[in-house]
Amino acid sequence: MNLDNIRIVLVNTTHPGNIGGVARAMKNMGLSRLYLVAPEKFPDEQAVWRAASAGDLLDSAVITATVEEAIGDCQFVVGTSARERRIPWPLLDPRQCAARIGALAGREQVAILFGREDRGLTNEELQLCNLHLNIPTSDAYSSLNLAMAVQIVCYELRMLLVQGDLPASEDDQWDTPFATLANLERFYLHLEQALTDIEFLDPTAPRQLMARLRRLYGRVRLDEMELNILRGILTETQKWVERGRHGS
Amino acid sequence: MNLDNIRIVLVNTTHPGNIGGVARAMKNMGLSRLYLVAPEKFPDEQAVWRAASAGDLLDSAVITATVEEAIGDCQFVVGTSARERRIPWPLLDPRQCAARIGALAGREQVAILFGREDRGLTNEELQLCNLHLNIPTSDAYSSLNLAMAVQIVCYELRMLLVQGDLPASEDDQWDTPFATLANLERFYLHLEQALTDIEFLDPTAPRQLMARLRRLYGRVRLDEMELNILRGILTETQKWVERGRHGS
Repeated sequence: MNLDNIRIVLVNTTHPGNIGGVARAMKNMGLSRLYLVAPEKFPDEQAVWRAASAGDLLDSAVITATVEEAIGDCQFVVGTSARERRIPWPLLDPRQCAARIGALAGREQVAILFGREDRGLTNEELQLCNLHLNIPTSDAYSSLNLAMAVQIVCYELRMLLVQGDLPASEDDQWDTPFATLANLERFYLHLEQALTDIEFLDPTAPRQLMARLRRLYGRVRLDEMELNILRGILTETQKWVERGRHGS
Repeated sequence: MNLDNIRIVLVNTTHPGNIGGVARAMKNMGLSRLYLVAPEKFPDEQAVWRAASAGDLLDSAVITATVEEAIGDCQFVVGTSARERRIPWPLLDPRQCAARIGALAGREQVAILFGREDRGLTNEELQLCNLHLNIPTSDAYSSLNLAMAVQIVCYELRMLLVQGDLPASEDDQWDTPFATLANLERFYLHLEQALTDIEFLDPTAPRQLMARLRRLYGRVRLDEMELNILRGILTETQKWVERGRHGS
């Protein structure tokens, strides 16, 4: 996938602050090509302010009079849409949509259209599209801010791009090797001895204490450094027991 | 999962507009519990303006002096964080994180902490957390707007909630049954006859024409209504050929 082949097209945006927010959202996620179809107010200092360090995207934005001009050279066009439409069109959520775009954007030009703040894209504009994208929302309040909608879609494209770069789980990125079973067993033996030494554990009536402690440390998956720290604590504790028994 | 068990905690937010943007982002995704730890300016009309129809979340926001007060009754705490930290902590992307939270938020109280606009959460605050959340960004510009970060995280929670409700693919939601193979074959026969009638197809030298047309319509997966429309066009076309041959 090549994010440079994907353009974000804003149609008749009313608030220039939203254009700035869109520019920042795009740049944060690695997209750079912004098209503005007949924006109400642009350029505008509100756009610059909200863009923060993404002013370069505003400078390079392509301004056109019509949607057709903005997408004429594209092979694949996606339109953002509310859920219900008179003529059903293929409708995907942002994740499915990113996957479709990802499969194409290596060699084709892709446009993603976002409509007016108050009423989105017209039916005519939606019929220019290969498919429609809908962002799941709460029924109680389904109207997303324009820049937020762009942020979510660009985030999904980035997630697709970094797939495989990201650790599959929190353990993949650990800086120290996790403890081996043999070392863990040595630790449990040491722990049991130390607990006996301090007379917290009565070997003649051990109850479930060691089982509970094994469950605790098993759940946390100790790394070798943590294991060394814990064994160091046990060793020091045992020294105090020794001193306490024989005087210092 | 119960979104009401998840709170969004903003720590020392500088710009009240961001608080409003967060409220709207939350309500759009079905979250309702906003905590503000020592906000610089709140209440504020900028917050109300950016919240749009989510003013109720601002009204019910809980304001505390410290992070500990805001999360004291939580069983699981997530802190948003930049990628690199001195002490590595379990670090997940928003999707993995939503999955972890989803597994807990049926019965436990979960907090997600977002730090200051300019420097995020302190190391002390991050060490209050069970795990850290990082939103993938472009190396060229990695600083997300606060409300955008909240939007992405809340979006992932909503995606988790609606999983299964959403159609698995664009075909799942089609309003008309897709054409059966038998009806498709009748259409192809009809098409071939009509193309012969208008003398576009020469049956003695058909080349690859029908194969190409089959590939075209096979790719699009016609539904029964579309098939009827196409056959209607063929029938009308054939009538004109008939009239042209025999005079009208």
